[in-house]
Amino acid sequence: PAPPGTRQRELQVEAPPMYGRYTQELGVYAKEEAARLRDGGVRDGAGLRRNTSVRSRAADLLEYEKDPCAKCHLCASRCQKFLISRVGEDWIFLILLGLLMALVSWVMDYAIAFCQEAQKWMYGGLDSNMLLQYIAWVTYPVVLITFSAGFTQILAPQAVGSGIPEMKTILRGVVLKEYLTFKTFVAKVIGLTCALGSGMPLGKEGPFVHVASLCAALLSKFMAPLFGGIYMNELRNTEMLSAACAVGVGCCFAAPIGGVLFSIEVTSTFFAVRNYWRGFFAATFSAFIFRVLAVWNQEEETITALFKTRFRLDFPFDLQELPAFAILGIACGFGGALFVYLNRLIVECMRKQKTINKFLLRKRLVYPALVTLLISTLTFPPGFGQFMAGQLTQHESLVALFDNRTWCRHGVAEEFDYVSHHHHAWKHPQVNVFITLVLFIVMKFWMSAVATTMPVPCGAFMPVFLIGAAFGRLVGEIMATMFPDGIHADGSVYPIVPGGYAVVGAAALSGAVTHTVSTAVIVFELTGQISHILPVMIAVILANAVAQSLQPSLYDSIIRIKKLPYLPELGMGHHEKYNIRVEDIMVRDVRYITLTSCYRDLQEMLVTAQLKTLALVESRDSMILLGSIERLQLQSLLSLQLSRLRRLEYLRQLAQDNGGRDRPASRTTDSTPSSPCARVNSSSNARQAVRFLVMCSAFRCVIVPSSFSLQVAEWEEQQLDEPVDFKNCKIDPAPFQLVEQTSLHKTHTIFSLLGLDHAYVTSMGRLVGVVSLKELRKAIEGSVTVTGVKVRPPLASFRDNGNNANVSEVTELHKLCIRHRGLSLPREPNPPDHSNSDTNYCQQVP
Amino acid sequence: PAPPGTRQRELQVEAPPMYGRYTQELGVYAKEEAARLRDGGVRDGAGLRRNTSVRSRAADLLEYEKDPCAKCHLCASRCQKFLISRVGEDWIFLILLGLLMALVSWVMDYAIAFCQEAQKWMYGGLDSNMLLQYIAWVTYPVVLITFSAGFTQILAPQAVGSGIPEMKTILRGVVLKEYLTFKTFVAKVIGLTCALGSGMPLGKEGPFVHVASLCAALLSKFMAPLFGGIYMNELRNTEMLSAACAVGVGCCFAAPIGGVLFSIEVTSTFFAVRNYWRGFFAATFSAFIFRVLAVWNQEEETITALFKTRFRLDFPFDLQELPAFAILGIACGFGGALFVYLNRLIVECMRKQKTINKFLLRKRLVYPALVTLLISTLTFPPGFGQFMAGQLTQHESLVALFDNRTWCRHGVAEEFDYVSHHHHAWKHPQVNVFITLVLFIVMKFWMSAVATTMPVPCGAFMPVFLIGAAFGRLVGEIMATMFPDGIHADGSVYPIVPGGYAVVGAAALSGAVTHTVSTAVIVFELTGQISHILPVMIAVILANAVAQSLQPSLYDSIIRIKKLPYLPELGMGHHEKYNIRVEDIMVRDVRYITLTSCYRDLQEMLVTAQLKTLALVESRDSMILLGSIERLQLQSLLSLQLSRLRRLEYLRQLAQDNGGRDRPASRTTDSTPSSPCARVNSSSNARQAVRFLVMCSAFRCVIVPSSFSLQVAEWEEQQLDEPVDFKNCKIDPAPFQLVEQTSLHKTHTIFSLLGLDHAYVTSMGRLVGVVSLKELRKAIEGSVTVTGVKVRPPLASFRDNGNNANVSEVTELHKLCIRHRGLSLPREPNPPDHSNSDTNYCQQVP
Repeated sequence: PAPPGTRQRELQVEAPPMYGRYTQELGVYAKEEAARLRDGGVRDGAGLRRNTSVRSRAADLLEYEKDPCAKCHLCASRCQKFLISRVGEDWIFLILLGLLMALVSWVMDYAIAFCQEAQKWMYGGLDSNMLLQYIAWVTYPVVLITFSAGFTQILAPQAVGSGIPEMKTILRGVVLKEYLTFKTFVAKVIGLTCALGSGMPLGKEGPFVHVASLCAALLSKFMAPLFGGIYMNELRNTEMLSAACAVGVGCCFAAPIGGVLFSIEVTSTFFAVRNYWRGFFAATFSAFIFRVLAVWNQEEETITALFKTRFRLDFPFDLQELPAFAILGIACGFGGALFVYLNRLIVECMRKQKTINKFLLRKRLVYPALVTLLISTLTFPPGFGQFMAGQLTQHESLVALFDNRTWCRHGVAEEFDYVSHHHHAWKHPQVNVFITLVLFIVMKFWMSAVATTMPVPCGAFMPVFLIGAAFGRLVGEIMATMFPDGIHADGSVYPIVPGGYAVVGAAALSGAVTHTVSTAVIVFELTGQISHILPVMIAVILANAVAQSLQPSLYDSIIRIKKLPYLPELGMGHHEKYNIRVEDIMVRDVRYITLTSCYRDLQEMLVTAQLKTLALVESRDSMILLGSIERLQLQSLLSLQLSRLRRLEYLRQLAQDNGGRDRPASRTTDSTPSSPCARVNSSSNARQAVRFLVMCSAFRCVIVPSSFSLQVAEWEEQQLDEPVDFKNCKIDPAPFQLVEQTSLHKTHTIFSLLGLDHAYVTSMGRLVGVVSLKELRKAIEGSVTVTGVKVRPPLASFRDNGNNANVSEVTELHKLCIRHRGLSLPREPNPPDHSNSDTNYCQQVP
Repeated sequence: PAPPGTRQRELQVEAPPMYGRYTQELGVYAKEEAARLRDGGVRDGAGLRRNTSVRSRAADLLEYEKDPCAKCHLCASRCQKFLISRVGEDWIFLILLGLLMALVSWVMDYAIAFCQEAQKWMYGGLDSNMLLQYIAWVTYPVVLITFSAGFTQILAPQAVGSGIPEMKTILRGVVLKEYLTFKTFVAKVIGLTCALGSGMPLGKEGPFVHVASLCAALLSKFMAPLFGGIYMNELRNTEMLSAACAVGVGCCFAAPIGGVLFSIEVTSTFFAVRNYWRGFFAATFSAFIFRVLAVWNQEEETITALFKTRFRLDFPFDLQELPAFAILGIACGFGGALFVYLNRLIVECMRKQKTINKFLLRKRLVYPALVTLLISTLTFPPGFGQFMAGQLTQHESLVALFDNRTWCRHGVAEEFDYVSHHHHAWKHPQVNVFITLVLFIVMKFWMSAVATTMPVPCGAFMPVFLIGAAFGRLVGEIMATMFPDGIHADGSVYPIVPGGYAVVGAAALSGAVTHTVSTAVIVFELTGQISHILPVMIAVILANAVAQSLQPSLYDSIIRIKKLPYLPELGMGHHEKYNIRVEDIMVRDVRYITLTSCYRDLQEMLVTAQLKTLALVESRDSMILLGSIERLQLQSLLSLQLSRLRRLEYLRQLAQDNGGRDRPASRTTDSTPSSPCARVNSSSNARQAVRFLVMCSAFRCVIVPSSFSLQVAEWEEQQLDEPVDFKNCKIDPAPFQLVEQTSLHKTHTIFSLLGLDHAYVTSMGRLVGVVSLKELRKAIEGSVTVTGVKVRPPLASFRDNGNNANVSEVTELHKLCIRHRGLSLPREPNPPDHSNSDTNYCQQVP
């Protein structure tokens, strides 16, 4: 056949390919057909699409692609160009990304500060009337949050929430297209600015990971035309996205090292060390620009930490304080687990309550507005807010909590004569500092858990960090009260530094919630002091140990709530899942095509199976796996077989033959006598032909003679019965294979390492099953689920744990041996032990 | 046949299996045989071993193993037990490891300090006579180094050097058994203590990684009986070893975070984030204990950093100093590359100079002694040492270099009235501080490069760190001279802190030499201050960028020098290697066994092929890959077939039959007519039998009648001609497969990710080649080699870069199709294009 690219327009006669179209009004169809012809038949595959529109999803399944092998071509030519110019552009890309993100972060911080100043100014200006003051205090955040929620909802609902769970899923290899568009970027940046400007207990860090990834994705797209299609490579995109995650955290906290480590811990399962420098470079550059902007704006004298502390350098803490730090860490571990649980509980409660759920779905802005109203009412400074430092922003609270001087000595609050108004908020004339701190912690705890469920772009890291700092401060103040002159015995007096406890608590609680150790590094970079390294490390590790054994991380929890296609981690100590093997979880009913399949099988397969790739086996009997073919490839094969060009050619031939012969279809039928499918389907063919005859005669089309239609329908039937020609098809000749005995643990490792979507299960080269991410996830969650009944795969408990692991495998091999030797082995030691089970199999083999 | 476990001792008559033993004295053989019988035939395979001892390496090849499947069994039963109790023991193990390593580190530091004090005391006590002083100054290190070299040489030569390259190789999956023994541990610890005590410019950090790994390996072995064989799992060992590497760095510098990151960067290619906590926990615990020991020993008041600095917190550096930091970083990059090059040059020079090489090989202790003599002569304080602060130890030098006060203002040295003698060493009455610093840098640079080539346990990190600090100090002092009142324009005066430059320089140079970014974190933890984070990060990244483009890292360089079986990294920007495909580098002459192979083929294969695993294919024609079998498995199959038990049984049968028939061998020959191998080899059998007849008649054995020997030999021949029974053989049914078109880049990634040793190359299921680590390394180094001609694989340059990547693959598939359809396709579009090349193949298929 002529190549599909060249357009042959000399033959204007075209048969309407209407086979199978008996469910639709014929008049409607005629109109459509006329419109299609007016368009000039731009799309070759349109005919095919109509042909199959009767079936379920056939129309979009068989959508003809101009370049069906676009993805495969990448590997050869593009990839090479790409790699030549790659290194230089990597630097340019990373610098641009860092610069852009630093600007975004700084501008956003500026805008947020402006918003909060505006609120303060409004609130301060109305101090004559408390009602007006209250209204101003409450309305402002409600309006901002409602706007944020509405704006995000309208523009891009994907921008809601933290974004780290989605990034984790994307970096795992799952394509979530909508999460990396320009719309999402705009929605996320503006929505986040408004949400944070409202003063709610929300964080900037999680969304910033998303924003940075968006930035990287858009920058890639933008740079693609400049550098010639280089930025389309998938591998590269992953590398760039993981660098972007580091940039996100890095420029949010001006913490390059912590940013890189945190992003690795939060988003990766296996990390390629060779990509390390990318993240470091971009995050450092970004953090640098972010802080330089502050210097240029005269906010700072030079580049320093965001929450600079001034702890004692010579004697930061006493050795005997370490138990207190350890207890703080353990308590933070429990607190972190509780936070994750609370957060999930709120979401699940709202989902389960059908009336609430329905109401909220209809009025999407009511929930955030209500939550904001509640929280801002409670923090109203002249009201309850005076007992919990409600007037302070997160930044101000943190600065106060990290202060290196004790707030109270011997249980009595000291005079805050040396400090700014930040500290006065903590000191209530009637109420002890301890009570203020406890109230602050308790209130902020549930407020943060509730606030982070609002449908606005927001993170939970900063609120949690703040709560941790407050908790640490509380412990520190208690310690300072208990040991007013410090613990150190000999010589000089070193009073206890409650600010150090705040730093430790902040790191420990945020570490517990996110299940990361790198929060330790983040606090060092945030405070600009590393003197408390050992207490911080001890507390963070203990907090992690406690939290990880109780709850999943906040991000994993969100992944489960959102049901994102992510492979959960194998929990520690869940040993029962080592008893599960692939054969317990695999899908045995694999959809495959054989070398002798005909196009009809292909069509059938495409219509019924939802898989992205299909297995190719040698034959139905041998089942030897030869490779896998992408769905797209099969679709294009099918489209080519029934393409307009071939149809035209056939029609031309038909027109030429029309004088000579009456039934040109019989000629083509004769020419394919050896096709196995054709022989099988010949009887059903005849029946269908009769049906079409009835239908076609009812349809009066002005374009082609009706006798042609029938012949074309017949021709199509014949085409479908031809065996598939795999010559022009890209086949992956080495799809990933597992064996039946592979343990779940190993399968999980391989899937995570290679970012697999599915793997075929083979037994001595024979395809016996397939395992996809879905099955794996089910199996893992079955044994991981923390709350609820643990589900084990059906066969796992019946299995003997002994050494009979390879029995079936050996038998399989034995069968193959016998098949090869023709059952004529002379001195076979135990001939009866396999003759029973194998007869069936052996008979199948000629 | 009877299972090999039950011993049948009733039949004492045994045939000496001496087939093929015609190269040895028969008398010697008779003695051996008698001795063997006296031993009681403990080893079943001994007979077999003798059988084949005539061939090249047959004796140790066919060593019989009691439990040939030991490794495979692990997966099933042990693994499970192991995982149940695993988590708790992980903690115990890590705590023990941390504790042990902290003790080792502390004791070693103590011993080193004692050694150095002893030298100082000796040197100080002899200040009346300069000659005596010189002798004392020089003899002491020479004796220590010579002892260290000799001790290491005798006990465990594996302990020489850093150990990081070896650990990198081991963690890559290559087994270097000798590197993890108790002997090596002792040699390394004692050798290292002596080497460092000598005061040579050597480091502790690299060897400590090795020591910690040794500790972990030994601890595993020690804990194995306590916890029931749990500590034998390979996966676990890798996890533990990578944690141990972190501990090594962590407890050496009291830098837990930096230790973890450094060890990841230096030893891993892909890192499993789930193992992150292990390293953190162990390193933190270890660093904690290490510092607590110092507190308990009254060395320190509380836990602080090892080289605590006291830089200004409010204004650590000015923004306008950043260019200076950047230049420092770039210069350190060049310096680092030069150091690696120099180090390699020295080793290669000595290797190439045959006379030197021969001499050094004979007198192994001469080289270290000479080097030590040279270095200690040059550092002799009253001599040249006075111009380069030769009297200071590394620790003292670093403390001085990190000092926060400037040494000179306006180019003139300030009065060091406030400081200890550390600083006086830098201030020579006649010589400028700058000259002292420059001399120090230059001398230490080549001294360190030379010293690290000595055959003692030593690392290069600390010397390089020190040189970097000195270089940074030099730049800092120059800056302080140029801007005596600081750069900051408005308001207060902030003088420049040269100590900050020293910190930056130390991180940058050590980062450049090791190609790591985490040296930045190490300096923060070492100095206890993080205020210079941005300059440090910028300098380290720039230094890395420069050094990585010029030279491999020091550890990769050593790996290449030592020719360790490690897969080098794909360098950045070497795009030509993306043009290489697996088909260019694979070995096409794959050794395989087929399902129809007989034991003789097996024997042949085992004797001639050196591979650890052999491919199993369906048949010689189809070549469809069914799996791979370990060499050990094949050996045991062969041993079973020719086992003493079966031989005994045969003899018994022979003895029973002896009355009835004259030639029982003929019976057995008749019973195996269908074995294909037997038929093929029957003529050669006859010839061999004659040969044995000649030989056996010459041999007069007292144990068995000589007529039996012949029969046994014949029996063995028959046994070898039987087809292999794979029933009792463990087969890996899914060995890793690549396709011919896989790019080198992808192959490299997969090999690194999965720690593969080899992979089969298949084309539509057919085995066409094999690629092992060796081929891959050759291919990569061919295009990576920095100095010398780049070698490209033969076919790479002839290839068109277009879209014809899958041509051969498609043809292959096409062949298979044709084979399946019997060449009777009716409307094949272009039949001639495959008929030419395929005829050969198609004819092979019946």
